[in-house]
Amino acid sequence: MRQILIIGAGKSTAVLIKYLLDQSEKQDLFLKIGDIDLTNAKKIAEGYGRCEAIFLDIFNQENLEETVKIADIVISMLPARFHIEVARACLKFRKSLVTASYISPQMKALDEEVKEKNLVFMNEIGVDPGIDHMSAMQVIDRIREEGGKMLLFESFTGGLVAPESDNNLWNYKFTWNPRNVVVAGQGGVAEFIQEGKYKFIPYHRLFRRTEFLAIEGYGKFEAYANRNSLDYRSLYGLEDILTLYRGTIRRVGFSRAWNMFVQLGMTDDSFTMFNSENMSYRDFVNSFLPYSPTDSVELKMRHILKIDQDDIMWEKLTDLDLFNDKKKIGIKDATPAQALQKILMDKWTLEPEDKDMIVMYHKFGYELHGEKKQIDATMAHIGKNQQETAMAKTVGLPVAIAALKILNKEITTPGVQLPITKEVYEPILGELAKHNIIFKEKHTEYLGYNPLGAVGG
Amino acid sequence: MRQILIIGAGKSTAVLIKYLLDQSEKQDLFLKIGDIDLTNAKKIAEGYGRCEAIFLDIFNQENLEETVKIADIVISMLPARFHIEVARACLKFRKSLVTASYISPQMKALDEEVKEKNLVFMNEIGVDPGIDHMSAMQVIDRIREEGGKMLLFESFTGGLVAPESDNNLWNYKFTWNPRNVVVAGQGGVAEFIQEGKYKFIPYHRLFRRTEFLAIEGYGKFEAYANRNSLDYRSLYGLEDILTLYRGTIRRVGFSRAWNMFVQLGMTDDSFTMFNSENMSYRDFVNSFLPYSPTDSVELKMRHILKIDQDDIMWEKLTDLDLFNDKKKIGIKDATPAQALQKILMDKWTLEPEDKDMIVMYHKFGYELHGEKKQIDATMAHIGKNQQETAMAKTVGLPVAIAALKILNKEITTPGVQLPITKEVYEPILGELAKHNIIFKEKHTEYLGYNPLGAVGG
Repeated sequence: MRQILIIGAGKSTAVLIKYLLDQSEKQDLFLKIGDIDLTNAKKIAEGYGRCEAIFLDIFNQENLEETVKIADIVISMLPARFHIEVARACLKFRKSLVTASYISPQMKALDEEVKEKNLVFMNEIGVDPGIDHMSAMQVIDRIREEGGKMLLFESFTGGLVAPESDNNLWNYKFTWNPRNVVVAGQGGVAEFIQEGKYKFIPYHRLFRRTEFLAIEGYGKFEAYANRNSLDYRSLYGLEDILTLYRGTIRRVGFSRAWNMFVQLGMTDDSFTMFNSENMSYRDFVNSFLPYSPTDSVELKMRHILKIDQDDIMWEKLTDLDLFNDKKKIGIKDATPAQALQKILMDKWTLEPEDKDMIVMYHKFGYELHGEKKQIDATMAHIGKNQQETAMAKTVGLPVAIAALKILNKEITTPGVQLPITKEVYEPILGELAKHNIIFKEKHTEYLGYNPLGAVGG
Repeated sequence: MRQILIIGAGKSTAVLIKYLLDQSEKQDLFLKIGDIDLTNAKKIAEGYGRCEAIFLDIFNQENLEETVKIADIVISMLPARFHIEVARACLKFRKSLVTASYISPQMKALDEEVKEKNLVFMNEIGVDPGIDHMSAMQVIDRIREEGGKMLLFESFTGGLVAPESDNNLWNYKFTWNPRNVVVAGQGGVAEFIQEGKYKFIPYHRLFRRTEFLAIEGYGKFEAYANRNSLDYRSLYGLEDILTLYRGTIRRVGFSRAWNMFVQLGMTDDSFTMFNSENMSYRDFVNSFLPYSPTDSVELKMRHILKIDQDDIMWEKLTDLDLFNDKKKIGIKDATPAQALQKILMDKWTLEPEDKDMIVMYHKFGYELHGEKKQIDATMAHIGKNQQETAMAKTVGLPVAIAALKILNKEITTPGVQLPITKEVYEPILGELAKHNIIFKEKHTEYLGYNPLGAVGG
């Protein structure tokens, strides 16, 4: 039997394991799930013959090396910062490695050695990063092969609540790590390029500079800009492209409402608040409002945010029980972002029956034989239940597929890499389609920002 | 002759030297002005018998130590980060030291050794920090000595253009380091306490949460909050105070207009812009505005900032020639803040005949024998010319006075310190008054935020 070592028993691991176990007889596989805490690993492995949960502490070198040594390939589902330990052990014992995380500079530094040893260290092969890379490069390569020249590339992804479970005024629930949502967009300006013009959006304007987009059958969405759009020029070979923009998808109206928290300063994660433990939700809100001896927190809030009496924004706030003077933050030395997360988790946590949804939207503008054309490629995937969520599936499946294809020598080009070559994306996208992760393409004339070629800016 | 070594021939050094030279016969002083660049030092020393410009490189230890060794006291007018080198040499040869900068953690760490050697390392003795400490502590100590209990302390300082030279729409010109003005308020939230309630203002709201204040004979001003108000609780022994707020003074309307730059992201100093060297002022502005194939930069700007046709905000922008497509930024790899500074310096640089002004405003609320009272202490000082500016005078004079009084053993308490004790502030404020740096006090009933004691927040 060929042994696959999966390190880290997180949300996506169950989906990943299920995919591999379904083929374990035919493919002659045995799976080991290594984790420092066996509770979850055991739950995942339970009842399967070709799967075992084992104790694994990656910071215990002997333990790590012994475990890696006897595996045929390794998958790390640990938080990104821990991959490097695993990668070093993989190098030592000549094992290929798969992760769903962005390539860190440390990981990148291993490239030469990985190539020398003829190994594949595949990274960024979850959903975003992952499916976004593969589905975008498949179309970009096709356009180029036809002789087209890329003019525009825009790409948007969102993890949302499924329509059938979408029952609050924000049209949002936490379907993955809540913290990432609360601090999203912080840490630097959003840079991108539109029709050859560089554009900068500071954090405090980010959620008011959104774009609308529609996905057939799923209605309207909006997207706010990601920070790092320009990195994708070199990554995808789009150095001369006129428009390059990446963003995060939310339901329409979310960003405008979220902006209220940004404006007040409630998403700040750079300082801790005195006595946050005993602060009521109301106290928390009031600390971002001007002092008044007599006016209510409610009226000060309405005034500073210019919320009219008939504005649904107000209902979105009261929906969160934001002015409650009994509920406590209950976290010692909390930053505003941590306190806000606490308040939101009361209302935005998925109920047992709730389902999630992943949506992705790519827009490609190009010129072919003197004609300007456009392709809009969209994907929407709804989770099955709280175990097989859309997020777990779109992260776990590509990882599992990649690992098996590397093990089977279908993917062989060595090096520290991400899935942007045909050798990688073609077979994996083909396999994902069988699991109902499918992009629909719409071909039209070019509808970019400046189809008539006016001298704008 | 007793030798005073002044390191660094900056703007305030000329004023400082002049004060000391005026007394050099009577006090038997000889001044050495040490600098790595002799141009300015020579100009300052020129024509005086008891003063000499010398080459001094503080990073050449032999050079530094030889120079410090033969001095009787040392004044460092270098940028704050360089004081520590001088301080170490002073310790080695047992010389007292005076600086106008905030006490750094490195400087603070020398305290014990400074005390052991019975030296005075006096810091924060310019205008802000400096005159603010002394004038505030004089009133606070007096209130306490009378048996009063402090309820409120607010303190505001501003470096502005003098009324007679105030001839642009912003009512502002650069009278000191322009960079500090452009990045003011960045790097963290503004925290303070009002009537016992902690309040936080994020950077992007700072310039809309101003307070108005008036100084008799000088009209109305406004102030935005400083970041570090709460530090002054322990510094001034105001641990239980209900209201503590420090701010920076501008002429009315400045902050609201400045906020336009903040909102757009033009004050950002955290990233550099592609091809900033060849960027026109208009390009720079446009990079913070949404793309349009046809609309003008002007209309996009009016729209995003909601500037009506009759709004003076618009004139403030055009006054800066912000939409010029010929003028270039001309700085390689400029941050937005650096580019904005360049644009502003075209218009906000003092003309040869222009004068500057320093204004300071302290508000003290206290309870004495069951009665609530208030003192408003204000100071305004106008510069004489471009050499004897108000800024140079209010920084240079207290430094010079302190150095002489330490040399004359009138100030003797040893240690790394700032001017908050009676021993220090009484004689120095007395001497400053002779140079027309005078606080006017107005005594009233308490007019704080909540004089009637309503249950607010």
